[in-house]
Amino acid sequence: MNAGRSLPPVALALIGIGTGNPDHLTRQAVAAMNAADLILLPHKGEDKAELAALRQALCDAVLVAPAPRIAGFDMPVRRSAGDDYLVQVDEWHAAIARCWQDAIAGATDSPAPEAVLRVALLVWGDPALYDSTLRIAARMQPAPVRVEVVAGITSVQALAAAHAVPLNDIGQPFVVTTGRQLREQGWPAGVDTAVVMLDGQCSFEALAPEGLHIWWGAYLGMPQQLLDSGPLAEAGPRIAHTRAAARAQHGWIMDIYLLRRAAQPVSAV
Amino acid sequence: MNAGRSLPPVALALIGIGTGNPDHLTRQAVAAMNAADLILLPHKGEDKAELAALRQALCDAVLVAPAPRIAGFDMPVRRSAGDDYLVQVDEWHAAIARCWQDAIAGATDSPAPEAVLRVALLVWGDPALYDSTLRIAARMQPAPVRVEVVAGITSVQALAAAHAVPLNDIGQPFVVTTGRQLREQGWPAGVDTAVVMLDGQCSFEALAPEGLHIWWGAYLGMPQQLLDSGPLAEAGPRIAHTRAAARAQHGWIMDIYLLRRAAQPVSAV
Ligand SMILES: C[S@@+](CC[C@H](N)C(=O)[O-])C[C@H]1O[C@@H](n2cnc3c(N)ncnc32)[C@H](O)[C@@H]1O
Ligand SMILES: C[S@@+](CC[C@H](N)C(=O)[O-])C[C@H]1O[C@@H](n2cnc3c(N)ncnc32)[C@H](O)[C@@H]1O
Repeated sequence: MNAGRSLPPVALALIGIGTGNPDHLTRQAVAAMNAADLILLPHKGEDKAELAALRQALCDAVLVAPAPRIAGFDMPVRRSAGDDYLVQVDEWHAAIARCWQDAIAGATDSPAPEAVLRVALLVWGDPALYDSTLRIAARMQPAPVRVEVVAGITSVQALAAAHAVPLNDIGQPFVVTTGRQLREQGWPAGVDTAVVMLDGQCSFEALAPEGLHIWWGAYLGMPQQLLDSGPLAEAGPRIAHTRAAARAQHGWIMDIYLLRRAAQPVSAV
Repeated sequence: MNAGRSLPPVALALIGIGTGNPDHLTRQAVAAMNAADLILLPHKGEDKAELAALRQALCDAVLVAPAPRIAGFDMPVRRSAGDDYLVQVDEWHAAIARCWQDAIAGATDSPAPEAVLRVALLVWGDPALYDSTLRIAARMQPAPVRVEVVAGITSVQALAAAHAVPLNDIGQPFVVTTGRQLREQGWPAGVDTAVVMLDGQCSFEALAPEGLHIWWGAYLGMPQQLLDSGPLAEAGPRIAHTRAAARAQHGWIMDIYLLRRAAQPVSAV
């Protein structure tokens, strides 16, 4: 109903909130949440209800009076049939940007339309890692007068911390990639370590397991956190089994893993 | 002087503190610092004085009574001549582990030697990323009864946040690597994005700049933070110049950059 109204100028804060543990929040994130005039929370749509509840719980835990206003918005549904995948994503991002704008317009019924409105979005993990919030922000019209990013603990770090394992061998590179890439491209070139995200189907099963070690984690930072690790030949089938059971039990799963090939490190730190 | 004394059993917490901004600390890090009986701070040695002061300032900012005891230790010097680099690193790690143990022994003059002593170390950025603290912990004798890692904001995230730039293209992988690797191996295989750390010599100058974009940051999170970005052909020489001047001015520098090759993304999120 407010869609026709002109929006106040918006300063956007994309705030990384970590991966499910409220204590992943940084002091900077807490301050940025409190500095907002308005926090936009996704109500439903692609987001899991449990994760939406978690965002609300974070707000309850750290906001202090006078607390920012909180406005929900419904995530539009992504068309999944038809033409080019990237075109669909692009349309979807534009639709989400419009939802943000409607929610902002709906929540700013009152004062000083010329004043900059500070709007915050709570982003899972870190906004820089396999997340589209920055790209959606770039679709807003008019463009925000400012876009600020607050880093958050990523699932990569939550995984490494939970296993107390370093991401890199001394002086060596590593790749962060997706399940699809691992399936379609095989072991990434030029590295002995790969972190795999966005994997709905245990893509490690597509690799010859000899010489590979896996560190796996699901629901990292959350009460139902699961961990497993070991030589891929042994741990792989066990993880596939645990994953299927956990997914059936909870109705959803988010998991991530680190794969390392036995290798001779050659360099520094 | 206490080196001969038997140590109490030690539970070690390696706490990521972010990259210079005290507000990078997570709520989990603050809690872990306060839960410690003893915090070990490096006094001097390879660490810059400014960074040692910053660790002390973090303690002053977040510790509450009854605050843990703080003990300094002198970092041993790394032999840099002679044989195999990895052998030197290994010896050095063992020497650091002994320094920790001496500092622990020196700081535990009193009660209940059978009780587990909770010892915390404050690790720059995240303990999983190009950091040796986990490897040093593995050298302690006797081994700690528990090693807990608390994730911290990395310089990779501080860079991406400061530039409000995503690390990955949609659905695409990226590499995290070192200046030395970039110089010796050239552009990493199979990726269009590389994050480069531990680069003392502007190794991006070794690349053909056409089609590459750079996002650079130095002293990220600190008052003297520097940022630059642009097509590598234009920004590269400017960054090399800024870097040399800043290094001369401050006496030290820490910098990191993201390089992206113009490419056709092909997949999701
Ligand atoms: C769309 S990406 C978002 C990543 C997020 N921005 C971050 O910084 O971690 C979602 C993927 O992140 C990983 N992930 C996120 N949260 C996780 C958690 N709590 N436990 C395990 N994996 C998680 C999974 O691989 C999942 O498929
Ligand atoms: C030994 S590694 C430690 C990395 C650290 N554990 C982390 O999580 O960022 C040191 C390298 O990290 C990067 N770095 C660390 N802090 C930085 C800062 N504040 N600004 C820019 N680069 C930084 C630089 O590339 C530096 O050479």
